[in-house]
Amino acid sequence: MTFAGEPRGSEQQVSMITMEEDGPHPRRDRVVVEEPLEIRVVLPDETRHSISVTMRTPGQDEELAAGFMFTEGILKDRASMSAVEHCPNALGAAAGNVVNVRIITDAAFDPKRFTRNVYTTSSCGICGRASLDLIRQSCPKKPEGSFELSYDWMMGLSSQARDTQAVFEGTGGLHAAALFEPNGELLFLREDVGRHNAVDKILGTLFLDNRLPASDRVLWVSGRASFELVQKAVLAGIPAMAAVGAPSSLAIEAAREFGMTLIGFLRDGRFNVYAGADRIAT
Amino acid sequence: MTFAGEPRGSEQQVSMITMEEDGPHPRRDRVVVEEPLEIRVVLPDETRHSISVTMRTPGQDEELAAGFMFTEGILKDRASMSAVEHCPNALGAAAGNVVNVRIITDAAFDPKRFTRNVYTTSSCGICGRASLDLIRQSCPKKPEGSFELSYDWMMGLSSQARDTQAVFEGTGGLHAAALFEPNGELLFLREDVGRHNAVDKILGTLFLDNRLPASDRVLWVSGRASFELVQKAVLAGIPAMAAVGAPSSLAIEAAREFGMTLIGFLRDGRFNVYAGADRIAT
Repeated sequence: MTFAGEPRGSEQQVSMITMEEDGPHPRRDRVVVEEPLEIRVVLPDETRHSISVTMRTPGQDEELAAGFMFTEGILKDRASMSAVEHCPNALGAAAGNVVNVRIITDAAFDPKRFTRNVYTTSSCGICGRASLDLIRQSCPKKPEGSFELSYDWMMGLSSQARDTQAVFEGTGGLHAAALFEPNGELLFLREDVGRHNAVDKILGTLFLDNRLPASDRVLWVSGRASFELVQKAVLAGIPAMAAVGAPSSLAIEAAREFGMTLIGFLRDGRFNVYAGADRIAT
Repeated sequence: MTFAGEPRGSEQQVSMITMEEDGPHPRRDRVVVEEPLEIRVVLPDETRHSISVTMRTPGQDEELAAGFMFTEGILKDRASMSAVEHCPNALGAAAGNVVNVRIITDAAFDPKRFTRNVYTTSSCGICGRASLDLIRQSCPKKPEGSFELSYDWMMGLSSQARDTQAVFEGTGGLHAAALFEPNGELLFLREDVGRHNAVDKILGTLFLDNRLPASDRVLWVSGRASFELVQKAVLAGIPAMAAVGAPSSLAIEAAREFGMTLIGFLRDGRFNVYAGADRIAT
């Protein structure tokens, strides 16, 4: 993480371990940077309205903010905006992660149209940090699961999950998430057009059955490992998550901070361990 | 779309045309269903608070709502919830797409924590419908672009976009979006951990340069075609969008309604046309 106003890139180097049939191989890997961006509307009288926090890869933040304003129907043309710029007063975790959109007097901006709400748990306004605080409040200690994940165990998980992912094969449009027991048995799999929804369906099933925290379960996801998915798994007390795709920088940071094992690129007979390698049998 | 209270599945049949080197092949295809779900908290005094609208695939809606409540830190355990059920009063477009979460008196739910806001453009509360209305208000007519897209032209676009997507190759974690001119030239490509952000960066660049509507451009995206991406492209006046991955049901519906050409599975020397086939040269 580069949260102190340093120049940011779209990728970052991390240490990880590649597990192959012949054993572990420590390596360096490039991962995509994921950080929150807050977009604020600044009226001519300097009144500020925070209108969105999105997890994004730094770069072209002004264009991202302008595109958001346009595609959300807030601004119709360039003339209604006097400037779009990084907020110079955003410090610490927020430095470089806040963009102010200054709009002119007669722009059609009505604060009363802020009617749909998202529940927030922190006043800091930067969703990544707020979410880390939420995790800290809810899960003060490392997930319990002390079982070891071997190469063979992970290969068994991978093939079971893919075999069960029937609908995905039919449409190519579904993300899947699946939950596994320590003995390697697949408990259930859920699918959705949104990968966060597939995970919420898994965790909601556990919640309704009073089976949380799920400290002896492993979560598998069919796509990439974003911060949001790691956050959900940690909150549910799940000690290990394995993704078929790539992890983001913030997903790795969160997994390391909260003691979760994070596996990426679980496919083609190998996988990468980005956090919590102490649970991997070598 | 099955918006009238009929049972919903996670996939749906559509007609489309597969374009291969030897010409067009009309086919039927299965696509994943994408529809909005509104989650409402209902307090013991029957006060209702809409806390989220998410685009999801119908099925396990109660589990999705429960998982959302838990992973957002709103509810800590099953005991704080007396029921989770589809709203029986949701009619028309909303039928089956609203879930009520009934919470008990002493549950830790504080409406004042609804502090982060999302700008909305309709009071209907169902984001898919509200977004269609937004498109109708902003783009009363079909995008203008009358140029024809040939098989060879699309193959050229596909190889240029993939060659330019350099960072993706490095991390495996980035989505890309690119904009093309009628002569087949790539104007620019943007990348982001979020695919909606990659498209917003493209459209924001056009917005800041006063180059909207982009009625003679084609948008390419590296992943799947969701409703949200089609909505953004239509608002920008872009007449054709091509995705490497699968389209959703609502993406196809929106493209058909607003006269946009929607191409999916553009890879391996072929592509599928799900909407606006009149722009495809055969």
